[in-house]
Amino acid sequence: MKGPEMRSESGPVAGVVEGTETSTGLVVGVDIGGTKTAAGLVDPSGALLDTATRPTPAAEGREAILDTAAELVRSVAADRWGSVTAVGVGSAGVIDPERGVVVSATRALAGWAGTDLRGGLSRRLGGLPVATGNDVHAHALGEQWRGAAAGCADVLLVAVGTGVGASIVLGGRVRYGPRSVAGHAGHMPVPAAAGAPCPCGGTGHVEAVASGPALLAEYRRRGGTRAADLAEVARLAAAGDPPATDVLAAGGIALGQAIGGLMNVIDPEIVVIGGGVAGCGAAWWQPVRAAIAVETLPALRDVPIVPAALSATAALLGAARLASPPPTRKDP
Amino acid sequence: MKGPEMRSESGPVAGVVEGTETSTGLVVGVDIGGTKTAAGLVDPSGALLDTATRPTPAAEGREAILDTAAELVRSVAADRWGSVTAVGVGSAGVIDPERGVVVSATRALAGWAGTDLRGGLSRRLGGLPVATGNDVHAHALGEQWRGAAAGCADVLLVAVGTGVGASIVLGGRVRYGPRSVAGHAGHMPVPAAAGAPCPCGGTGHVEAVASGPALLAEYRRRGGTRAADLAEVARLAAAGDPPATDVLAAGGIALGQAIGGLMNVIDPEIVVIGGGVAGCGAAWWQPVRAAIAVETLPALRDVPIVPAALSATAALLGAARLASPPPTRKDP
Repeated sequence: MKGPEMRSESGPVAGVVEGTETSTGLVVGVDIGGTKTAAGLVDPSGALLDTATRPTPAAEGREAILDTAAELVRSVAADRWGSVTAVGVGSAGVIDPERGVVVSATRALAGWAGTDLRGGLSRRLGGLPVATGNDVHAHALGEQWRGAAAGCADVLLVAVGTGVGASIVLGGRVRYGPRSVAGHAGHMPVPAAAGAPCPCGGTGHVEAVASGPALLAEYRRRGGTRAADLAEVARLAAAGDPPATDVLAAGGIALGQAIGGLMNVIDPEIVVIGGGVAGCGAAWWQPVRAAIAVETLPALRDVPIVPAALSATAALLGAARLASPPPTRKDP
Repeated sequence: MKGPEMRSESGPVAGVVEGTETSTGLVVGVDIGGTKTAAGLVDPSGALLDTATRPTPAAEGREAILDTAAELVRSVAADRWGSVTAVGVGSAGVIDPERGVVVSATRALAGWAGTDLRGGLSRRLGGLPVATGNDVHAHALGEQWRGAAAGCADVLLVAVGTGVGASIVLGGRVRYGPRSVAGHAGHMPVPAAAGAPCPCGGTGHVEAVASGPALLAEYRRRGGTRAADLAEVARLAAAGDPPATDVLAAGGIALGQAIGGLMNVIDPEIVVIGGGVAGCGAAWWQPVRAAIAVETLPALRDVPIVPAALSATAALLGAARLASPPPTRKDP
């Protein structure tokens, strides 16, 4: 299954890389999701020089997914291949950043768990150094580098889409945790979710009532069958449709309660909210903000709550950042 | 209001301090609570050489509280005063560790907010360096240094007493946050608290149903008026009294849900639970552990959940640790 770009670790490409200064080289960021894989060529300032995207061959297994990722890396690097010093990959699932291995994966990437992401990709790229992390962490690093949280050291990013995830950046570095699980904010309890089944197997978690699929299901349960997707629910809410408005408000309040509770513990400098559901407009954002304001301690009421600014490019920039981290800051 | 131990900054005591090596000197840890103030003389290995305790003169105002703390410091130092290189203070309330000022305080210490804790105490102690933090952070540092979390770099400590608080230690260092608010886990939402008023002014927070006063009030609400205090509720539960058992279980489950949800985000190496309510026995601990097990993601199910080991001495050791922090670790 290995593609033609397979190189031995002692081959000529590796030789070029060894002689290159990391601080001035280019890095390729890769975003592996359940439906598509993207790669972007990133310069040291965080400028995205080129991007390419393909469907993720999820049904064909891990070797095919790695082949696709490697081909995309070579495609965006093209004739600047000799200047590429490293690759950073953000992938769906739980990724162990130390070993570069997929610890567990979502149903959309069956068979992905256990993959040697770092080794498999590095081998396909002539031994190029590969850094790994999960896609939400990459998203957070991208927003912290060049997006809505630029200039902030301590960031809570919450991504609301098919699931609800988060990433905590402290001192410019992602918090992974010893089991690589840190950031799973979707599995925090909220009152409105009491008894509701969560995709994790538990019940009562915010993801069970605030994710995109949960909002769409709730809209249909309330009889709002006109909506083909969440974007249409958002359009209906913007036009004043009461069930659409109510559903987005209920989901937004549940999310805001979870975020507010978490802010009381983390005390972040800024909160960035992204993901598809964050595109649902004021009918969703106003309840989110209102619930956060109610939930947080007075000292936190001026913490900026902002939408993600970079959309899909955040994950590419952040993946690149995984391979070119900022200088280590001394602890306070 | 200043006591007789006031010294000028250029006095003889300050001169001795300036010539002393911090790494080999003794440190006095101080724990200022709403009802009592304690001080302990701590050597560099974390051994507690002497302690002293007095009622906190909360009604007499901040100068009296500082006088009492300073007198206790001199009392435990006694004839080893010349070997004391610094003082660390953990105080109830929100403390800004950079400025050494009390940002806000509980009702038990009215007028404490705004106090220059570092400056006021240092001036009373001949200019001795004073480090400050809040009491829960000190508790966590003490357990992490010499107690239940010894040897662990990343600790989530939860203290359940008059309120519900927490402290996150990452890489051996307390997370304070830019607004010094980090750790306020009592103000996380849980389903069982929906609508219940919280001391913070909000509703629906775990502290509203899981704190000591909340458990005692709930026991009485259910008709169990025999209990004079929570310790008696715990004894009744241990003897099989159904209302006492039910009340401790409900509070324990609510707390466990909040802790489990937080673990999914923080991914701590170990969770330490202390405070007076943690002395309620198996009728409380079993529901806490069961709820955490249900709430956490599978990868976290082997995280140790342990009782605090040092009781009141943790806050003294941790306060001393505030003034003698471990060597800065490089970020991973």
